Amino acid sequence: EEVKDVSEPQIEYLVSWNEGPNKQSIIDFVKATTTPGSPDFVAPEDRIATFDNDGTLWSEQPYYFQLQFAIDRVKSMAADHPEWRDDELMNAAAMGDIEKLMSFGEEGLLKIVMATHSGISEEDFAKEVTDWINTARHPKTNLLYKEMVFQPMLEVLEYFRAHDFKTFIVSGGGIDFMRPWTKEVYGIPSEQVIGSSLKAKFELVDGKGQVIKTDGLNFIDDKEGKPVAIHQHIGKRPNAAFGNSDGDLAMLQYSFGTSGKSLQVYIHHTDGDREWAYDRESPIGRLNKGLDEAAANGWTVVDMKSDWATIYPKN
Amino acid sequence: EEVKDVSEPQIEYLVSWNEGPNKQSIIDFVKATTTPGSPDFVAPEDRIATFDNDGTLWSEQPYYFQLQFAIDRVKSMAADHPEWRDDELMNAAAMGDIEKLMSFGEEGLLKIVMATHSGISEEDFAKEVTDWINTARHPKTNLLYKEMVFQPMLEVLEYFRAHDFKTFIVSGGGIDFMRPWTKEVYGIPSEQVIGSSLKAKFELVDGKGQVIKTDGLNFIDDKEGKPVAIHQHIGKRPNAAFGNSDGDLAMLQYSFGTSGKSLQVYIHHTDGDREWAYDRESPIGRLNKGLDEAAANGWTVVDMKSDWATIYPKN
Ligand SMILES: [Ca+2]
Ligand SMILES: [Ca+2]
Repeated sequence: EEVKDVSEPQIEYLVSWNEGPNKQSIIDFVKATTTPGSPDFVAPEDRIATFDNDGTLWSEQPYYFQLQFAIDRVKSMAADHPEWRDDELMNAAAMGDIEKLMSFGEEGLLKIVMATHSGISEEDFAKEVTDWINTARHPKTNLLYKEMVFQPMLEVLEYFRAHDFKTFIVSGGGIDFMRPWTKEVYGIPSEQVIGSSLKAKFELVDGKGQVIKTDGLNFIDDKEGKPVAIHQHIGKRPNAAFGNSDGDLAMLQYSFGTSGKSLQVYIHHTDGDREWAYDRESPIGRLNKGLDEAAANGWTVVDMKSDWATIYPKN
Repeated sequence: EEVKDVSEPQIEYLVSWNEGPNKQSIIDFVKATTTPGSPDFVAPEDRIATFDNDGTLWSEQPYYFQLQFAIDRVKSMAADHPEWRDDELMNAAAMGDIEKLMSFGEEGLLKIVMATHSGISEEDFAKEVTDWINTARHPKTNLLYKEMVFQPMLEVLEYFRAHDFKTFIVSGGGIDFMRPWTKEVYGIPSEQVIGSSLKAKFELVDGKGQVIKTDGLNFIDDKEGKPVAIHQHIGKRPNAAFGNSDGDLAMLQYSFGTSGKSLQVYIHHTDGDREWAYDRESPIGRLNKGLDEAAANGWTVVDMKSDWATIYPKN
């Protein structure tokens, strides 16, 4: 009689990860929660993994990539907005004067996002984003921004999905800025992308409905907002949560409160040669309290320099 | 050489539907959008079908079932809330005096929902809902409320999913009231349930996070709110949308604006013997403008009495 080998096929996952306790902690978690008969087994429909985006799935230096998109939108929209000429903030954006722009603080950034992300149908906005993500390049690397995603994290996404986890993005970035490309780049469909959002309204045109993005702020998906957004969108705690900054701390603490076995991972940017090195003092992606909490709770802190054999996908 | 039969297996779907143009319109839509080579083919990852809940997937008379849940919560919570004794509204609820309760209008209902659905962790609330849905019975039918789901619609859900549509609930009902049982009853996981919601907050207890439902109103998922919620949660237009009242009209118009082939279905409650008969004048589930729009646009209007061979699942 033929004996079938029912053990897991020996596909090699996480090939861009160097061997070590951090890689092992991810593998141990997935094996413990997905192996039938394991005391930590989680039913497939309850397997949820959440991932921050900026600094966790792709780079975020010297400033969030979405800000560059907004600046590029200001430039292309400026001709139709003569009123911006006398506006110091919009002028700084149109000129690409980042230093000046940053001097307006978060309020200034929000104003630029409002001006460039609203008054447009969801389809037209998606087209603007798609055009940008397929052409815009990062000034330091000359790579397309969408090529500055982390190869080891693409492998984590694939590894989790191969084990029936649903993978979600939970980002402070704009939900409509991410959705047009997350399926192609990360394999994550729009309905599994959670982010910050502006308000929207319904309009009827010739008996057919459409949704228009408006300039009211709907939700900031950061810090304590992340678990609240997960509650509202998913309705289940994440068994695993990945982040890179103090903005992810509440999400990791929420995952840490899962009744069964759970996994919390911080990506620590330690590689100034291949990417950027920053943590406790960085204005972008500050990781300070999170590092302390990770140490206190035994969470996984990935050292990009030593844990990752590759940073960006090779073309 | 062996020739493989690659045609669709002849599983019989929609067995509780009588033959006729309404059943056929559903089948025609699914075949057109899922048969490879069809001019109306939709890629599997873009197949989205949205379903209203009250009156579309289960009954809603003589008043929304969630109101009975809230009333039962008031009764069980009353001993701990002596301040309710002097409150006319809460008293009416505790007494089950529906007529009196209704005299307070929507504001009164909202107040009862706030009082019974907040100040509780998401897990504890889910447990309350689960206990109720597994025990509470409808006074007219003596069935469990969860047995008063429409067998023909369960078959529609299954038929769509078998053709790689993702099925979503988009209901005016409370999101946290539905999620604990939609997977078991409808096969729809919590992350595919969209509904009205209260606000929530994050709390830290012994280093672990939890989400507490609070008494602020977050979102009313009704009328023009439905397409907006679909935009925020899913980020794609529904190729197919099912509803039963004017509260679903905007959702159907939104689906109707899909660039490709789409399907809009109204469930018309015409069977006073087996269920309830109501439409243009009903205070619950009014279908007035929607009937006119359906006729004008050629949408499918299901006649429960003649189209459905069965109403509720047979045990
Ligand atoms: Ca981040
Ligand atoms: Ca309804």
